[in-house]
Amino acid sequence: MELIEKLRAAPVAGLSAQLRRRGLHRVFIDGVAPLTPGSSLIGRARTLRFIPLREDLFARHGGGHNAQKRLFDSVGPGEVIVIEARGFPHAGTLGDILALRAQVAGAAGVVTDGAVRDARAVAGIGVPVFAQGAHPAVLGREHVPWEHDVAIACGGAAVEPGDWVVGDDDGVIVIPPDLAEEVADATIAQEQEDAWIAERVAEGHPLDGLFPMSAEWRRRFDERDAGADA
Amino acid sequence: MELIEKLRAAPVAGLSAQLRRRGLHRVFIDGVAPLTPGSSLIGRARTLRFIPLREDLFARHGGGHNAQKRLFDSVGPGEVIVIEARGFPHAGTLGDILALRAQVAGAAGVVTDGAVRDARAVAGIGVPVFAQGAHPAVLGREHVPWEHDVAIACGGAAVEPGDWVVGDDDGVIVIPPDLAEEVADATIAQEQEDAWIAERVAEGHPLDGLFPMSAEWRRRFDERDAGADA
Amino acid sequence: MELIEKLRAAPVAGLSAQLRRRGLHRVFIDGVAPLTPGSSLIGRARTLRFIPLREDLFARHGGGHNAQKRLFDSVGPGEVIVIEARGFPHAGTLGDILALRAQVAGAAGVVTDGAVRDARAVAGIGVPVFAQGAHPAVLGREHVPWEHDVAIACGGAAVEPGDWVVGDDDGVIVIPPDLAEEVADATIAQEQEDAWIAERVAEGHPLDGLFPMSAEWRRRFDERDAGADA
Amino acid sequence: MELIEKLRAAPVAGLSAQLRRRGLHRVFIDGVAPLTPGSSLIGRARTLRFIPLREDLFARHGGGHNAQKRLFDSVGPGEVIVIEARGFPHAGTLGDILALRAQVAGAAGVVTDGAVRDARAVAGIGVPVFAQGAHPAVLGREHVPWEHDVAIACGGAAVEPGDWVVGDDDGVIVIPPDLAEEVADATIAQEQEDAWIAERVAEGHPLDGLFPMSAEWRRRFDERDAGADA
Amino acid sequence: MELIEKLRAAPVAGLSAQLRRRGLHRVFIDGVAPLTPGSSLIGRARTLRFIPLREDLFARHGGGHNAQKRLFDSVGPGEVIVIEARGFPHAGTLGDILALRAQVAGAAGVVTDGAVRDARAVAGIGVPVFAQGAHPAVLGREHVPWEHDVAIACGGAAVEPGDWVVGDDDGVIVIPPDLAEEVADATIAQEQEDAWIAERVAEGHPLDGLFPMSAEWRRRFDERDAGADA
Amino acid sequence: MELIEKLRAAPVAGLSAQLRRRGLHRVFIDGVAPLTPGSSLIGRARTLRFIPLREDLFARHGGGHNAQKRLFDSVGPGEVIVIEARGFPHAGTLGDILALRAQVAGAAGVVTDGAVRDARAVAGIGVPVFAQGAHPAVLGREHVPWEHDVAIACGGAAVEPGDWVVGDDDGVIVIPPDLAEEVADATIAQEQEDAWIAERVAEGHPLDGLFPMSAEWRRRFDERDAGADA
Repeated sequence: MELIEKLRAAPVAGLSAQLRRRGLHRVFIDGVAPLTPGSSLIGRARTLRFIPLREDLFARHGGGHNAQKRLFDSVGPGEVIVIEARGFPHAGTLGDILALRAQVAGAAGVVTDGAVRDARAVAGIGVPVFAQGAHPAVLGREHVPWEHDVAIACGGAAVEPGDWVVGDDDGVIVIPPDLAEEVADATIAQEQEDAWIAERVAEGHPLDGLFPMSAEWRRRFDERDAGADA
Repeated sequence: MELIEKLRAAPVAGLSAQLRRRGLHRVFIDGVAPLTPGSSLIGRARTLRFIPLREDLFARHGGGHNAQKRLFDSVGPGEVIVIEARGFPHAGTLGDILALRAQVAGAAGVVTDGAVRDARAVAGIGVPVFAQGAHPAVLGREHVPWEHDVAIACGGAAVEPGDWVVGDDDGVIVIPPDLAEEVADATIAQEQEDAWIAERVAEGHPLDGLFPMSAEWRRRFDERDAGADA
Repeated sequence: MELIEKLRAAPVAGLSAQLRRRGLHRVFIDGVAPLTPGSSLIGRARTLRFIPLREDLFARHGGGHNAQKRLFDSVGPGEVIVIEARGFPHAGTLGDILALRAQVAGAAGVVTDGAVRDARAVAGIGVPVFAQGAHPAVLGREHVPWEHDVAIACGGAAVEPGDWVVGDDDGVIVIPPDLAEEVADATIAQEQEDAWIAERVAEGHPLDGLFPMSAEWRRRFDERDAGADA
Repeated sequence: MELIEKLRAAPVAGLSAQLRRRGLHRVFIDGVAPLTPGSSLIGRARTLRFIPLREDLFARHGGGHNAQKRLFDSVGPGEVIVIEARGFPHAGTLGDILALRAQVAGAAGVVTDGAVRDARAVAGIGVPVFAQGAHPAVLGREHVPWEHDVAIACGGAAVEPGDWVVGDDDGVIVIPPDLAEEVADATIAQEQEDAWIAERVAEGHPLDGLFPMSAEWRRRFDERDAGADA
Repeated sequence: MELIEKLRAAPVAGLSAQLRRRGLHRVFIDGVAPLTPGSSLIGRARTLRFIPLREDLFARHGGGHNAQKRLFDSVGPGEVIVIEARGFPHAGTLGDILALRAQVAGAAGVVTDGAVRDARAVAGIGVPVFAQGAHPAVLGREHVPWEHDVAIACGGAAVEPGDWVVGDDDGVIVIPPDLAEEVADATIAQEQEDAWIAERVAEGHPLDGLFPMSAEWRRRFDERDAGADA
Repeated sequence: MELIEKLRAAPVAGLSAQLRRRGLHRVFIDGVAPLTPGSSLIGRARTLRFIPLREDLFARHGGGHNAQKRLFDSVGPGEVIVIEARGFPHAGTLGDILALRAQVAGAAGVVTDGAVRDARAVAGIGVPVFAQGAHPAVLGREHVPWEHDVAIACGGAAVEPGDWVVGDDDGVIVIPPDLAEEVADATIAQEQEDAWIAERVAEGHPLDGLFPMSAEWRRRFDERDAGADA
């Protein structure tokens, strides 16, 4: 199975638990949710950094083919645009034309810790967008688009270009590329174990000894395939 | 009518108004909402207290059959698990296996002022869950599960084991057991009055003298059944 | 086309951008959302000011036909009730009977930076309500209804009686009456331009030179009707 | 003793406790502190209401002899200017020239839930100023000065013109005029009782039975003057 | 040197760094400061847990010799009272009589993540008090004193009875008893190293290679006593 | 007079008002205060950007001669170090050794929207430090030091290397270099005018017509030197 397929099969909650076991506790892009509940997102990060509005800097860097538009023009298939908006909820950080550009370019999604303008239209385009919410203001209310493809802060997480970014209804996490395969494999294995535990719970077994599994329950878990194979 | 049936017939907004008339102003578990809009919740509180993560305390109390799991293993029909997560939004406080355990045990619901992991799966299980939101992190990101069945703070409200806990789309409230019957009765009576007022408003009557009712309007209200009986 | 029809055709995001070009940057009622996603709201402001609960003032001004009820009794067709609740999320500022009164009176909607009681019932009445959220508490938990039809603060915006108030899924803005026609016209024109740009983006054109339009792209845009007319 | 002398002898903490006994729980102007620690403030409220900056309203109401300056020009001896700045910390609400005007006019102080410009200079003028902090921005960064001598919200408290306003290092409270004498008298009496209790605690007596006083301790307290008189 | 003397010689910043090296990252009681800048605090924790005000529970547990007063009556020499006030800034959690009781009993200090009443008087008593700030309200505005000598949350940190609590101008930390000696020793050693580095920096040496020390600088550091001893 | 002397003579409040007149409204580094009240700060910005802690990135970039230390090693006379700590209050961003290094290098000051460790020691070194507060934690609790001398966000303001940074008790502002001379001159002129107005206010003149000055008052102001010269 391709790595991306494995990640698609792995819930964000499970991936984050595996990262935690490997000492990575700060991988959460907090405070964002999918515009369309139930949508998910997987891809490699392309980053965009805004700095706070300052009128002289906006005059020099805000207009024309600015950093934001350069990024959307250069995004490619499978990439996720991740925007540092310093968690400011009351200004848009992209609108429907940019979302459409991302969709046409085959981008895998957009994550912003700011807001989305034209949120209903953006939700209808199809490219998954995870944001803090909707707001009608243009980004110039609060931001100067500054540079792309540098390390950024988004929702309290550090994101480097090339990081894996994975999101579902629970939220969005960042996975360092060199850990992605291992973490995805471990998550899928754990999911199978948890599914089996859930079946036992559904049968009425208490959590005690089962979740986490005692030696006895693990023996039964390990033997489950034997019976299935017979 | 059984008390629980009365509470089921009483909207949370109405119950809280009756508690207020009896001098109880601090009964709201603020900041929580049902994972599935439109769901409601009624039952007696079983409480769970988390304390902030401290690595040495987690090592001693966080694993195995900890306080959280002991509570879910001992929950019974009609009980509502209420979790003190100190309002921290960025860590899970239960996931799908625990929610399933609560469902199997016949619990009436779960209220947490923290987040839910596997939120989509949890919502699908059926047991009503009211939470601050969804987050993929395990509880060990922020909490040590400490003890159960003690007085706690949840969403700014004090909750004692055995309190009635009632929730709908407006939010969740706590009702001291010795007031529950009286408050439920008064709420249902008030609902009938309000429904009659709403009919008059729908007919085009202004609020003046009607809401609250003047002596004249109350006379008509009191006479409404006479006409109906005739 | 009537002004109100123009405003109906104009998205809030577009209107706010035109206000911004005219030097109006502080027109956003932040932190509110429609109870029913997808609903919109257009009308002239009728304002209501609450002050913080103080028990002696509530005793004198809170009951009977108070300022809140006087406003709902006097609201007329096409008017939008706008409530200053100082952004407090944990107390209702209207309930189902008042919402019904507004609906019967032909009001165009309600905006409150506080909460709504009986939120599910209110959503079902039909009059568009934009609020910070739902809460079961009566307004007396936090407010004294004080006066109506004065300048207020709502969601961080100043609102005068008679201002146009326009809302959709992106949020709610305030438009000074003397600018409304000009801003609506400019928004509709800009929407046509943006729609044409979106078509070009959908065809695969990059943003560079197109959004915003270079002289060359603008020439093509200006000629689009010539071809269409031929 | 004059009322104002009694209030001067009464700590804010004690006054608030007496208001509480009379059912007034919401009398605190929260979040403000004296620019000069240790200063205190007593007087009758003159109120000033700001609304959020809106560029068109500021053009009409912000300049010249605006509401803010009209109030400072009309303030008289013993009056306390109380400013509603909606708790916004990042804009000045008065500076050194206005503070000087208040001082010259004999004002008893200024309370603002916004910031003070030229804070060091203002602290040096002598008139007591209680504020949320210091900030260099002019009020036009965030506010339109709107009207004076109306009921306002300041630091979460409702303040009417004419209310007593009393502040010390613990904070600032509002006292309805008709309760001031009674509350001041009760506070002074309670202070004497507390001082006597403190002497007993200093002697090593435990709190049990003493604070609050048992019948036995109260008997000794009541007899203390007999001995002193003998 | 006695443990307490070692802790007295160790700055809080240094102690927290040593705890961090031993895997303890969550030891900070955030958001509190000494009433008297420059004061410090060292002792073993005696804990006090408040729950949110609920009128019926306050009636049963708030008055008389409640949990708060039982704790202050039982505090002993060298102990630090640590109060869980859920970080609420706008209600007192102790006043001058209780602070005096703690002083008389020889307590080493008080830490509360709520406010202090009679703050100026409390500061004058002498027992070190670290709090979120001052507020005139009694604790009954927000709290029910519930129980003492249980694990609590204070300023985001878990505190168990018997933990070492150490505070200075940087803030307050918690040290598990079994780590205190080791951490204090390591801090004092590190302080000596840092002092020597500071001397080199004062001489004009750059940080590169010195802070942290390279092998060469460490050799010189290790040899410093040889020269001193000679 | 040298530019720096002019800036030294100009209060921050006055400078910000002149920037505002030139269309620069977003120049405030909000939320910071001098460790030593009354100190001021003037110099050219050297910037430092932190990104959120991520354990794998800290392992690669956090130790040794990291970006923070490279900046402190390269700072020169008259320069102000400005640190982007994303406004996080609960981790140090510099301590006494780094502050000493800045002092030895002749730096004009440090501004951080995070906290300072060893705050008392840092305050004693002499180099002016403006920060959000004190905290004992090392920066690794929350940050990875990432890069220096790039545009950053600090306290809500964009800061470019080379910007003038000026602070006093009112707060800290940023001045674009090409505006500094003009703004300083205008501020000093305005200060003279305000001082003259203050004298008139001290004499008992009302604000009406004086502040801002009417034509008549301005005539008297313009003639003041004639009399003085005579």
